[in-house]
Amino acid sequence: MDTNSSLRIVQYGLGPIGQATAETVLAKSGAVTLVGAIDIDPDKVGRDVADVIGNGVSDANVRVSDDAEEVLATQRPDVVLHTTTSFLGGVTDQLVQCARAGAHVVSSTEELSFPYERAPEASDELDRVAQDEGVVIAGTGVNPGYAMDTLPLMATGVCTDVQGVHVKRVVNASERRHPLQEKVGAGITTEAFEEKKAGGTFGHIGLRESLLMLADGLGWSLETVEEELRPVHADTPVDTGFRQVDAGDVAGIHHSATGRMQGEPLLTLDLQMYVGAEASYDEVKVEGAPPIDLRFQGGIFGDTATVGMLVNTVPLVARAQPGLQTMADLPVPRAFATKPLVEGAL
Amino acid sequence: MDTNSSLRIVQYGLGPIGQATAETVLAKSGAVTLVGAIDIDPDKVGRDVADVIGNGVSDANVRVSDDAEEVLATQRPDVVLHTTTSFLGGVTDQLVQCARAGAHVVSSTEELSFPYERAPEASDELDRVAQDEGVVIAGTGVNPGYAMDTLPLMATGVCTDVQGVHVKRVVNASERRHPLQEKVGAGITTEAFEEKKAGGTFGHIGLRESLLMLADGLGWSLETVEEELRPVHADTPVDTGFRQVDAGDVAGIHHSATGRMQGEPLLTLDLQMYVGAEASYDEVKVEGAPPIDLRFQGGIFGDTATVGMLVNTVPLVARAQPGLQTMADLPVPRAFATKPLVEGAL
Repeated sequence: MDTNSSLRIVQYGLGPIGQATAETVLAKSGAVTLVGAIDIDPDKVGRDVADVIGNGVSDANVRVSDDAEEVLATQRPDVVLHTTTSFLGGVTDQLVQCARAGAHVVSSTEELSFPYERAPEASDELDRVAQDEGVVIAGTGVNPGYAMDTLPLMATGVCTDVQGVHVKRVVNASERRHPLQEKVGAGITTEAFEEKKAGGTFGHIGLRESLLMLADGLGWSLETVEEELRPVHADTPVDTGFRQVDAGDVAGIHHSATGRMQGEPLLTLDLQMYVGAEASYDEVKVEGAPPIDLRFQGGIFGDTATVGMLVNTVPLVARAQPGLQTMADLPVPRAFATKPLVEGAL
Repeated sequence: MDTNSSLRIVQYGLGPIGQATAETVLAKSGAVTLVGAIDIDPDKVGRDVADVIGNGVSDANVRVSDDAEEVLATQRPDVVLHTTTSFLGGVTDQLVQCARAGAHVVSSTEELSFPYERAPEASDELDRVAQDEGVVIAGTGVNPGYAMDTLPLMATGVCTDVQGVHVKRVVNASERRHPLQEKVGAGITTEAFEEKKAGGTFGHIGLRESLLMLADGLGWSLETVEEELRPVHADTPVDTGFRQVDAGDVAGIHHSATGRMQGEPLLTLDLQMYVGAEASYDEVKVEGAPPIDLRFQGGIFGDTATVGMLVNTVPLVARAQPGLQTMADLPVPRAFATKPLVEGAL
């Protein structure tokens, strides 16, 4: 990477994740430069992005605008950090808009992490536009994007043969920020859980995408993909500081996905996110030669890791081949513009 | 990857690793096709490569030749699997020869994994030739290539900031094949160890390269790099089946590398390979946000994993941008043409 030229970044979407990515971009000033910020929230429009972020961030001299077209046209970003929604349906136009402005896009949209099965037409369009414009469009985050797809794929990298991959992620939601606790339904009743589930957008978004990315990376054609979403109930009362969860109430989710070939569950993803979990951890077991038994003690802390993956993917897309890409197409993600670099450069 | 076209592979070097990679290529027949084999050993030349490998491998209809030029010219391989020596000095000409024949090269040469510091001129030449010919030249293996460089780099991929990376690999050499036990000096005296060490080619080859690849991937300019190589002594007698090691004799090596910035040991690689070790494991600790504490229980079994990395890198180089590349430049390594795929294709 050419560390002499600072990449121009526009932050598209200033929800909690977008604010955190913008803050990280500001912290890496020099390697990347925040040149624009887009959000439609009237409470944010017109304010300096640093003021929206809070946390004592110094004035960024970047005003939040609700006119994406204008920001993209005037600021000519190298990369757009896109954090508006989990679902592909609402954002294809936004992604096309960024690419048409000549910008690479790194997006937190979970369904974009491996969009080919759920949205083949949108995938074709995004790939075509990206190639036309010579830019990369990629979806990433900690999960999907790392913990249950890219990482297990990398775990198989040393194997001469693989017969199965089994991934488990347990997140003690008590340690996480409030939106995650709300997202997993901590404190609601079982009835409310079933109602939310019937709504179709509850649960972890992107589990299916992780399974499909893993299968595709291994060259496996799965015959069936099953998903199951169940509540985890609190055994004892839990007070997270944000929420009070009574014994018997929903503590969170147990969401699993299974990919089968010849009836056998060769790929399994098991995700448990609930308040009061004894320990957080990430685990990948590969049945193969050699067998792999990998564990992240304490887990991969998602609030920070999602932001890390989004920002760290910026330099990777900036030098990748144009088109719609997944984390399986890009070089190994790694941190960049960290403190020792910045201090060393002074 | 286009799984319809089988990649034509030439195996260059038929020592233990080369025989194992050739065997793996034969096992993945369909996705890859072994079209040639090169070795200078008169005991191997002229025989079918399957006969050299043994292990009940079926006749491959590929005869071992000592005429590399002729094999490359007549077989026109897409990729050469190159496994002749650990050191760059002797192999630059071989690598150039393969590239000039229009073949990508995946090599087990440890010093090739990150050759820029040790051999800047050879690196320039290899990069120029590879770009001229539109091919990729890359060095890989389990270590260097994965356990102490690519993997820790990937561990930082979720971090918004990193203050240090500490990698530990403990290998119980009793579980490994005889050449590894010999390589680490199991059963020799302390005096013999010091003599071998003074020879300059003893110890693990590539530790410095791993440290430099990790630093480069993070964009860190290390001020100093220190290496230390010490013997591990056997507390009690060890019989590995291959070697008898008496108490007090050398059981293996403890090889470490430290990269400092502003005097601080920010990158440390600690490698212990000795017979009689209680447990094998690989561990990566990242001081950062979030902190990472990753462990491969039972370790990454190197005899197989080196072969896995070499063969799994074949499809990656075949679609990468031309030039001299490292594992930090290529997409995330993953297994390919595994049994479920092969069975599914039947």
